[in-house]
Amino acid sequence: MKRYFLGVTGLLLLIVVNAASAQSVEKAIKYRQGAFSVMGWNFGAIVDMIKGKRPYDQADFARRAQVIADVSQVPLEGFVTESHAGTTKARPEIWTNYADFEQKMKLMQDAADLLATTSLSGDYDASKRAVSVLGKTCKSCHDDYRKK
Amino acid sequence: MKRYFLGVTGLLLLIVVNAASAQSVEKAIKYRQGAFSVMGWNFGAIVDMIKGKRPYDQADFARRAQVIADVSQVPLEGFVTESHAGTTKARPEIWTNYADFEQKMKLMQDAADLLATTSLSGDYDASKRAVSVLGKTCKSCHDDYRKK
Repeated sequence: MKRYFLGVTGLLLLIVVNAASAQSVEKAIKYRQGAFSVMGWNFGAIVDMIKGKRPYDQADFARRAQVIADVSQVPLEGFVTESHAGTTKARPEIWTNYADFEQKMKLMQDAADLLATTSLSGDYDASKRAVSVLGKTCKSCHDDYRKK
Repeated sequence: MKRYFLGVTGLLLLIVVNAASAQSVEKAIKYRQGAFSVMGWNFGAIVDMIKGKRPYDQADFARRAQVIADVSQVPLEGFVTESHAGTTKARPEIWTNYADFEQKMKLMQDAADLLATTSLSGDYDASKRAVSVLGKTCKSCHDDYRKK
């Protein structure tokens, strides 16, 4: 009877722990998606300035580049162990290839820093090239680690 | 016949424009929610340090406070005109009371800046008070402008 009781308690505990863990995975997914959404919004505005869809404004461009550089530091923390289930496009390969994933994230952060400093300098052509470099680091990671 | 044709074209154009506008409102909602999610995640980690649920680490605390301060600057742009429909808890009062909403956002940004500089100094008690001040600015705006 005692063994049976402990068994039920253990099972309930397992369910509670699993539910808590599923909840924290969902939060981590939302966190990283939130960070990417902030970066994407500002990158979109910058690309629109380059494409002439929005007037070029150096101060606004540089401010947005700095937001991207700041926020580029945070999404990695949201890629908690094996969080490829749920409402995410993250491919399981992230966790079997984590060192490579982390390196691609680092390349993106460096490119974002480069864009922030370049755009502060006001050199439009160099800023345009830095936008292209940053875009390529995004794409490189998406190609390998994001579901279509 | 021509008038009828133009009528249909106009209607189609209206549908396309409305769809594009609905899409950009959805994007703006996602943007501001993304920013709040990044702030909330880092604020949660800071509060856990204050509550002893996570070991206090001054550098990590200060880094997270800086992320909050940086990102606190961005959500306002996502509150585009009348974007209280859709998947959002934003109350319509934001737009009938916009100056007050904007002022509350500014108070939050100032409190986040204060937390970032205080936590850099390493004064734990002052940082704890700055956390409480920031928390109150969040709550004050949520009370008035966020649906339950």
